[in-house]
Amino acid sequence: MRKIGALIFPGFELLDVFGPMEMFGLLEGDFTLELLAESAGPVASNQGLKAFAEKSLDDGTNYDILFVPGGAGTRHEIGSTRLLDWIARRSETAEFTLSVCTGSALLAKAGVLDNRRATTNKAAFSWVCEQGPRVEWVPQARWVEDGPFLTSSGVSAGMDMALGAVALMHGEDVAEKVSIWCEYTWHKDKAHDPFARIHGLA
Amino acid sequence: MRKIGALIFPGFELLDVFGPMEMFGLLEGDFTLELLAESAGPVASNQGLKAFAEKSLDDGTNYDILFVPGGAGTRHEIGSTRLLDWIARRSETAEFTLSVCTGSALLAKAGVLDNRRATTNKAAFSWVCEQGPRVEWVPQARWVEDGPFLTSSGVSAGMDMALGAVALMHGEDVAEKVSIWCEYTWHKDKAHDPFARIHGLA
Repeated sequence: MRKIGALIFPGFELLDVFGPMEMFGLLEGDFTLELLAESAGPVASNQGLKAFAEKSLDDGTNYDILFVPGGAGTRHEIGSTRLLDWIARRSETAEFTLSVCTGSALLAKAGVLDNRRATTNKAAFSWVCEQGPRVEWVPQARWVEDGPFLTSSGVSAGMDMALGAVALMHGEDVAEKVSIWCEYTWHKDKAHDPFARIHGLA
Repeated sequence: MRKIGALIFPGFELLDVFGPMEMFGLLEGDFTLELLAESAGPVASNQGLKAFAEKSLDDGTNYDILFVPGGAGTRHEIGSTRLLDWIARRSETAEFTLSVCTGSALLAKAGVLDNRRATTNKAAFSWVCEQGPRVEWVPQARWVEDGPFLTSSGVSAGMDMALGAVALMHGEDVAEKVSIWCEYTWHKDKAHDPFARIHGLA
């Protein structure tokens, strides 16, 4: 049983969080999920709707999997020393650290992706790259795995990465079962990224 | 500008709600979003994580679009006269009523789909059909449009339907733009449903 701590902050992108959490959450014997934020309580997404964080960053819970979404709010959070320190400290003890979309900018700024391969949203690629000059940014990838770090492309790519993470931990047949249950066509090829070309990155 | 009222209840399916809300929410000049529940406050999803309902069913807000998700919680809500009455009353004045997954069981039980074509989750198809014997259930469809009612297949199909709804209201090019922004491969053919065959329905 692995415990997932999913970070939320004002302006987080709804699908970045809840697409992957749908997938992990269906395997209730394998994963438990928690939302956490700078303060516990309701947190407004980029779309305005609010999710409810059960715990704050000060809570001492250890997570097996750290999950960091993107969204317009990352432009503000990139300046939060408290948040970046938390990411740096917690990703050291986590078995896996996952990010979706511009969430990888937060990981990069926290320094945890230095000398590693990573990807991000294709529409915000250059801004994210600036946050981590020592990261080997991959312009064309649905998601990238490098050691304990899995980083996905924009928004909906998080679902494909989550299923990839399930496959990594429990086998591809389990990931397939989850995708069928969700009636989701899983893009299981990490390298297949039609959106890189649309944004002039391939 | 259309106002969307998205219903949540204990055991709602995360992606049923937040996949479509991601899509609509990106068009912030065209749609405003609100979560509502039997009581305002935090509501636990089927995956355990909580969303925060700003309003209760008693609130008198009129919605242009009524949105009803599915999830394991529908098995309980199907017995809630208060909820079903609310759906019946509010869908009369709404311009569109949308459901995802087993959310169509709630619409059916409320009587609003009688003599209309509708679809639902393919894994729960027979249970949903029992909730609306006068509905013309379509076993193979990604989503179905019949007048003001749009009903989708399971979980991730809600995103394809939401983009279909955007296309209906604002044109296909706008829906395409949203899907590219989300790096989402939109399945725009309503009739394309590979999951019906997997569940022996086609």
